[in-house]
Amino acid sequence: MNQAASSQPTACVLIIGNEILSGRTQDVNLNYIAKRLAECGVRLAEARVIPDQEAAIIDAVNACRAAYDWVFTTGGIGPTHDDITAECIAKAFGVGLEQNAEARALLERQYRERNVELNEARLRMANMPAGALLVDNPVSGAPGFQVGNVFVLAGVPSIMQAMFESAVEHIPGGVPLSSRTVVAYLPEGTLAGPLKELQGEYPDIDMGSYPFYRVGRFGSNLVLRAADEGRLEEAVNKLVACVDQLGGEPQLEG
Amino acid sequence: MNQAASSQPTACVLIIGNEILSGRTQDVNLNYIAKRLAECGVRLAEARVIPDQEAAIIDAVNACRAAYDWVFTTGGIGPTHDDITAECIAKAFGVGLEQNAEARALLERQYRERNVELNEARLRMANMPAGALLVDNPVSGAPGFQVGNVFVLAGVPSIMQAMFESAVEHIPGGVPLSSRTVVAYLPEGTLAGPLKELQGEYPDIDMGSYPFYRVGRFGSNLVLRAADEGRLEEAVNKLVACVDQLGGEPQLEG
Repeated sequence: MNQAASSQPTACVLIIGNEILSGRTQDVNLNYIAKRLAECGVRLAEARVIPDQEAAIIDAVNACRAAYDWVFTTGGIGPTHDDITAECIAKAFGVGLEQNAEARALLERQYRERNVELNEARLRMANMPAGALLVDNPVSGAPGFQVGNVFVLAGVPSIMQAMFESAVEHIPGGVPLSSRTVVAYLPEGTLAGPLKELQGEYPDIDMGSYPFYRVGRFGSNLVLRAADEGRLEEAVNKLVACVDQLGGEPQLEG
Repeated sequence: MNQAASSQPTACVLIIGNEILSGRTQDVNLNYIAKRLAECGVRLAEARVIPDQEAAIIDAVNACRAAYDWVFTTGGIGPTHDDITAECIAKAFGVGLEQNAEARALLERQYRERNVELNEARLRMANMPAGALLVDNPVSGAPGFQVGNVFVLAGVPSIMQAMFESAVEHIPGGVPLSSRTVVAYLPEGTLAGPLKELQGEYPDIDMGSYPFYRVGRFGSNLVLRAADEGRLEEAVNKLVACVDQLGGEPQLEG
């Protein structure tokens, strides 16, 4: 895609959950992960939302772990019957699902401290693909895990976020892109020509135009992203001058 | 997946947009489409977020239009250089991109009425794959389009929603699933056993458990979905009795 990001490691997010596909729940995990990966210099290249269904999970995991440097899954690692992510990951990697001794010890300690029974359902949360490494869960205890280039995280946002922060420490980042937004009170159709010209002049900068309509006025957010701060400033200054000349009252953000 | 939904037509959503993958924008289109498809009895089986990049769009369109009955794309149909969805759809279908006469006439009328120049950039919005059918856009004018089983919609939520409502009239719905939520103030680990048993008894009902933590209390939303209202009521009543017996203060929603 954009040359700006071509040297960054790539990632994919797999959101596993019928509740997102049925419309019952508005996903917020993707946006959190997307922002954080951008800060770490990792390019989020794709995301998929798939149902809690074995074949769908296995196919998506195998397609995405082959295509991208890192994969993050969210959802399906709790104690109930619809939590099938761990066994699907094991099948995707062609390894057995086994009780992870470290995870079991962790759960035993936590449930003892809370004085809650570690029943059969809860013990399922220690079942992981052979060779899995634990991903720390400082919020609710039961850990996520990593197999190969796939990190398996919870679906509940607060827990997912904590697990993500544990996971992201283990992956090498790239050069974060800097980003500037020029707000222009002009319709996209007026900006399109000059913006295309500027993009031609700066192929190393990723330029996007996102129209809005607010408080009765049409406008566009023009977003420029690049690794090179100097080039970025140069292009932004040209764009601001151009928008100003067109009467678009340019405002600089970010 | 769930037997409950096996007789419904299937759909896939393709969200085309770097701004979602960079974390700049929180997507809200998926949730809108998901809810509306559920109401229409169409099963949303997958969603993908992909970048504004030709190969990624073509590959995803071709994979998804073969796998599902209907595909809805959002984003990338404006007048700027980063709006490449129409030409990618044409390539995916192996047809030419051409100026659609009906769309051109529509744009000419609209821009004349607004007294705004229909410049080269704006005219790009009339470029569509050969044979495309227009999808009405009552909000901002420039139409979406349909090719085969793929509906191509705008990315701006208000426009996307209007286009979706135009599009959905053209697709045959299925039997909508009814849904009930039992709120249980019990941790998932306690509910898992009884819920699994109930699922065994009602394989025709899709049962999901979604844990929450609010106002200092752990609980789970237990969501049951089925086409058959009678069976659904029966299972819900059993679940409520079971949660009550476990001291989970069951509350019925939806």
